[in-house]
Order: sequence, then structure tokens, then C-alpha cells
Amino acid sequence: MRRIDTIEPFRVMELLEAAQQLEAAGKSIIHMEIGEPDFPTPIEVISQAQSDLAQRSLSYTASTGLPALQQALSAWYKTEYDVDVAPHRILITPGTSGAFSLIYAVLLEAGESVLLPDPGYPCQRNFIRLAGADPINVPVTADSRYHLNADLIDTYWRPSTQAAVLINPSNPTGTVVDINFIKTLAEACEQHGGTLISDEIYHGLTYGIKAPSALQVSDDVIVVNGFSKRWAMTGWRLGWVVVPEALVEPCRRVMQNIFIAAPTLSQYAGVKALQLNEPLEVMRKAYDERRRYLLAELPKLGFEITVEPEGAFYIYANVAKLTNDSTSFCWDVLKQVGVAITPGADFGVNQPHLHVRFSYATGLQQLKEAVRRLKKYLTAT
Amino acid sequence: MRRIDTIEPFRVMELLEAAQQLEAAGKSIIHMEIGEPDFPTPIEVISQAQSDLAQRSLSYTASTGLPALQQALSAWYKTEYDVDVAPHRILITPGTSGAFSLIYAVLLEAGESVLLPDPGYPCQRNFIRLAGADPINVPVTADSRYHLNADLIDTYWRPSTQAAVLINPSNPTGTVVDINFIKTLAEACEQHGGTLISDEIYHGLTYGIKAPSALQVSDDVIVVNGFSKRWAMTGWRLGWVVVPEALVEPCRRVMQNIFIAAPTLSQYAGVKALQLNEPLEVMRKAYDERRRYLLAELPKLGFEITVEPEGAFYIYANVAKLTNDSTSFCWDVLKQVGVAITPGADFGVNQPHLHVRFSYATGLQQLKEAVRRLKKYLTAT
Repeated sequence: MRRIDTIEPFRVMELLEAAQQLEAAGKSIIHMEIGEPDFPTPIEVISQAQSDLAQRSLSYTASTGLPALQQALSAWYKTEYDVDVAPHRILITPGTSGAFSLIYAVLLEAGESVLLPDPGYPCQRNFIRLAGADPINVPVTADSRYHLNADLIDTYWRPSTQAAVLINPSNPTGTVVDINFIKTLAEACEQHGGTLISDEIYHGLTYGIKAPSALQVSDDVIVVNGFSKRWAMTGWRLGWVVVPEALVEPCRRVMQNIFIAAPTLSQYAGVKALQLNEPLEVMRKAYDERRRYLLAELPKLGFEITVEPEGAFYIYANVAKLTNDSTSFCWDVLKQVGVAITPGADFGVNQPHLHVRFSYATGLQQLKEAVRRLKKYLTAT
Repeated sequence: MRRIDTIEPFRVMELLEAAQQLEAAGKSIIHMEIGEPDFPTPIEVISQAQSDLAQRSLSYTASTGLPALQQALSAWYKTEYDVDVAPHRILITPGTSGAFSLIYAVLLEAGESVLLPDPGYPCQRNFIRLAGADPINVPVTADSRYHLNADLIDTYWRPSTQAAVLINPSNPTGTVVDINFIKTLAEACEQHGGTLISDEIYHGLTYGIKAPSALQVSDDVIVVNGFSKRWAMTGWRLGWVVVPEALVEPCRRVMQNIFIAAPTLSQYAGVKALQLNEPLEVMRKAYDERRRYLLAELPKLGFEITVEPEGAFYIYANVAKLTNDSTSFCWDVLKQVGVAITPGADFGVNQPHLHVRFSYATGLQQLKEAVRRLKKYLTAT
């Protein structure tokens, strides 16, 4: 089989497209499938960008990023996590997608492998395959809050394995792990001579607790983050990756070639975004209100939530009481009552047929209507 | 050797950084090393973007691009080249860099290969290596206007070869080939069961002639283009690739995973940019004036130009009369008289020590000063 044939579509996009077609045909759809904030980019960022358009050069920045943004992020790491990260270790990428392309190009050789939590963010598997390497899906359960733990790393690590991935808060489960847990992961990777990769894109979107950065436990981890979620800046395509000192130079070589640089206007906007507090807190509180609403209502409908999600904007529910085919269930719910939710199949091969993911990046009134519709659907069937 | 160790730095960036350090230390530098327009983005595009920032959603577009931009490009292909290209075959990418990452991910398997003209755009080799495949540097000369021709394709094609690359106008030589020439290339690739990839990023920047698109000879070629050069929009990171019908679906799967989408604001800006004519013509005429000046002056200094460059903003000169080590020569010229030019080593292994590339993406007065300085340097040494 050729590599291209191993690259799976991002299934939620197909469901999204079907939902959009139904909408275009006049049907009311509630979008709980999308992993994208429903909030607009903060007005402070928009205004700054309008001014920058008139006043700044929009030519290429340095390949590794605008120095002012690297410095602002370094200061942000000090304020946010009380860690010292040298600006040159913070590499600015076109979204976190760019960050993953970059680090797997640098870390992996054909035939090598990376440990991933299953269920987990679907694109991870494909980034690794595109680098010519193999994703190893490690089934995770409520026992480890749906994350890899040190035992799983020891069990699944192969001689070919180069890294293990933590997505904290998790997509799709929203579960968060603490600093001691992360320390055991970093140590387990180090013992095997590999690297812990911590995807921290949902940091700042946590409720009642704060997610620690893997940089708080080691400088030898790789941390990926970006402006898409917490700052509601998806279409700006701006992310970053913090790498160990030894990887700065190889990353720079790859970045010069594959990106030239991240979008210039977005990089200036990122500097502004890091200065914001209150606008982010408004969004976080809205997500939390929606989360609490769904955590109260979904179990009444038969959706089982085994571990309380404390971060991101997702709820991963077991649907064993309702169906043994979550994909057909999701498509049927979409067609019958116009509620779009994502089947487990997008997130791996660990009991996908018994799970669905709800996104609450949708307004509370819409969510209330979705619960009404789901109730109607489940009563009728 | 690990793959990452095969990825060469983009050497011109190192020379650029040294030049910038000299400037920071107070030295006057004339930049003839950079392959980036010295013109700002047209004001019409800036104004539109300011308005779009206030009025448009800046969330993700479809993975393959904003439909309005795909449609505008389809109309542009009809107007510009009189070819019919269905909008869904035009995939919008983060710069042409993104386009090359995409097509090599889709076309290539580990151990396969691609034929490249040498001298040629340096990043091409690295994109192919990052896909796990091998770039085959085919030495090209003035005899084929520094392009691959059908004979070279027949000679260098291996069983593992999947594609051959045309960069028309060429970087670094600025030479242009006509439609009959392109036809022979497409046929040669087809006979070997492979694909012609035509890099058309310098289209519109031609002088006295027009460069034809490979789409005028076949729908089975891959054409890469973007807004960086002709529209002076480098930092916007916006490109596109036209692919044969059969590649649309595999490309879409890869795009969903590795980009999610190109920057949203840039895509709206692209729609506006395609409506411009006069602002582009002003830039083109300025480049042509500079080109004619350098073509008159450089030979007097001992720089030999074997084929007149008719496109892009580069002149590739033989320096055999001046040095047998173009890299030392370029660094010495930079340090002694503050003129930054690119040594041949960036463009391949075909007599790089006897060549340098001049970029004329620098104002005419600056170029006149550069010629004075070069004369001084060459008289003194």
C-alpha cells in the first residue's frame, strides 16, 4: 500500500460537510461536531491587525519567527507557568499543524514509531505516517484518565519508538493530568531514550483546575501550543513549538525549507493576543457554563461520562446503552433531528463504536435545543 | 545518516543574516541576495484586508480553500491563459511551500525520486528528502536555457522516478521556455509514466515575452503558483496548486491533516489581488528597468551572462573570470564593499563555484551603487 493510501480523511469534516449541505437545504442544524471556537477573534486583536496592515512590513519574518513574538511568548511562559524558556527555543509555526509537521520531520526516520493515546486527536496518526513512520495506537481508559501513563509507555515502547504524545487537556475526552503525572511520563520516555511531546493547545481552557506545562518538569520535552483555541484565532494559522536546545538548529533548517515563515500579520497579532486577559476569561467562563449544563443533562439521556472532563470543549461519552454502532447513530441523529456530533471512529480503534464526542464550542441556547432534540430522537427510537 | 542530516540550510538565509548583522553594526548593505519583492503589498489589497478584518469570519475555511478564491483563480486561468480549470482542481495552500509539501506527500514513496534542474530552487531538494525520496540533480546548461529538456528527462529517468520539475521562469537563471518546449517535457514525463510539475511562481514577471502555463498543454500536469512574487504578498503565505482530477481527493485528505486550511484573511486578500492590473504592471516595469541596467553593466565588470534572463528578478552569472570560489567571493564582497549576492552553492552541485545569483528585487539607485561598489572591489583585488 502506498503511503498516501494510509492517510485517513478527517471524518468529522465529512460529517460537517453533510451538515452544511442540510443547512443549505433549509434544515436547522446544531453544530456539536466542530473543534473550533464559536467566539470571534478578540476585538483588540482585530484592531491591532488593522493598524499593523497600514504600518508594518508584511514581508517574510525570520524562519523561526518574529523575534518580538518569541520574546513575548518567553515572558508569557514565565508569567503563566513560572518557567524560564529562552526565546530562541520557541519556534513560530503556521498553526499547531505546522508544528507537528516540523517536529516529526526532525525526530523521525522511516520505520520508526511514536506512541499515541487512543482515543486521541486523529491528525496525529497521519502526521506520523506522512513522515514515513508508524503511529502506535495505545488503548487508554478511564483508569489513566484517558492518557498514556508510565506503565503503558513501558509496555508499548518498541526499539523503533522515538516519542510518546500527551494531549493535555485531552481531545476528545477533555481530561487533564497534573504535574506529577507528567513527570512520570517524561521520565519514562527518557529511560527509553525518547522524547515526550506535550500538546498543550487547550491550555487556558480548563475549569476549576489549571493544566501544567510539561516545561515545568523538563527542558528536554517538546511542547506544542498555538493561538487557535484559547485566543479564538483559528483562521490566523499561528502556533508554536518549544524544543530542547539541541533541536533548535535542525528545526531551523527544516523551517527555512518547508514554511519559509509563519504568516507575518498573524505573528504581530499574536504579540497583541498575549497581552489579553479579560476577553479570554469571558470565553473560558462561557465554555464552563456549557460544560456543566451538558454534564448534568447528557447522562439523563443515556450518554455515560466515565471521567469528568475538566478542559478543552469536548465531552467523550459512552453510548453503549443507546447503540452499538456510534457512526450510524451520529449520522442518523444528524439526519433525523439535526444535531451534529462526532463518532468515535475519528479518534482511533479503541472501542470507537461505543463512543461519541460532543463539542460545546456552540452557544448555550443551542445546546439546550440540542438536548431537547436528542431527547426527542431517543424517545422515538 | 538520518534524514534530518540530509536537509541543507537555505544558505542565502545565512548570508542574509550576516548582512543584517553588518547593517545593525552601522554598515551600508545593498541587498541583491533576497528573492523577495522590495515592493509593499498593493494598497488595494491592504485596504480590503482592513475591511475584511472587521466584517468577515476569520475561522477556518474549507481545507482545499475558500470557494470564492478557487472560483476567482479558475476565472483568472481563463483570462490569463485561455484555459478551463475547474475550481475544485485548484487547491489553496499556505504559500507555494505548502503546495510542494502537499504534492510530494501525495506523489512520493520512500526511495522514489524526482528529476530537478541543477542549478535550481534549493528548497525543492529538501521537500523531496523530507518526503523520504531522492532528488536527482540533473545538470542543465545554456544549451537548454538552464531547464530540463526531453533528452535530459530520458537520460536521467530511473524506474523509481515519479516526476520532473520545470521552474519557468527559472530561479536562479530567469530563463523562460515556450509552449512547444513545455509540451515536449509533459510528453516525456507521460511516456515514462510520471508527472510534470511546473513551478510558475514567477509568472507575470516576464519581460518582452509571456511565460505559458503547463496547463495549456495538458490537464495531467501539476502547476504550482502563488501570490508572493507577482502580487508582492510574501508574508501572507498564500499559494495554490492545480492538480489532475485523480489527485484532488488524496490531496484533500492530506490538506485536512497537515494544514487544516490556509490563512483565512490571506485567502480573502487573494480574491482582491486577482482583480488588480495596473499596480502589478508598475512593479513589472520597474523590475524590467533594473534588469536592463544590470544586463548592460555586469558584463563590463567580468560577470558573464550566457543566456539573457527574461523573467523572475534574477541574473545568474558566470564568475570564472573573477574567481574560482564563488562562495568566498560572495562573502568577501559582502564584507569589503557591503554588496550581498548569493553564491552558486545554494542552487546545486553543477559548477556552483563558478556562479553567483544577483537579485534585482532592490531599487535602481541601490543597484547603481552596487555596481559602483563592485567595480571598486574588483579594481582593488
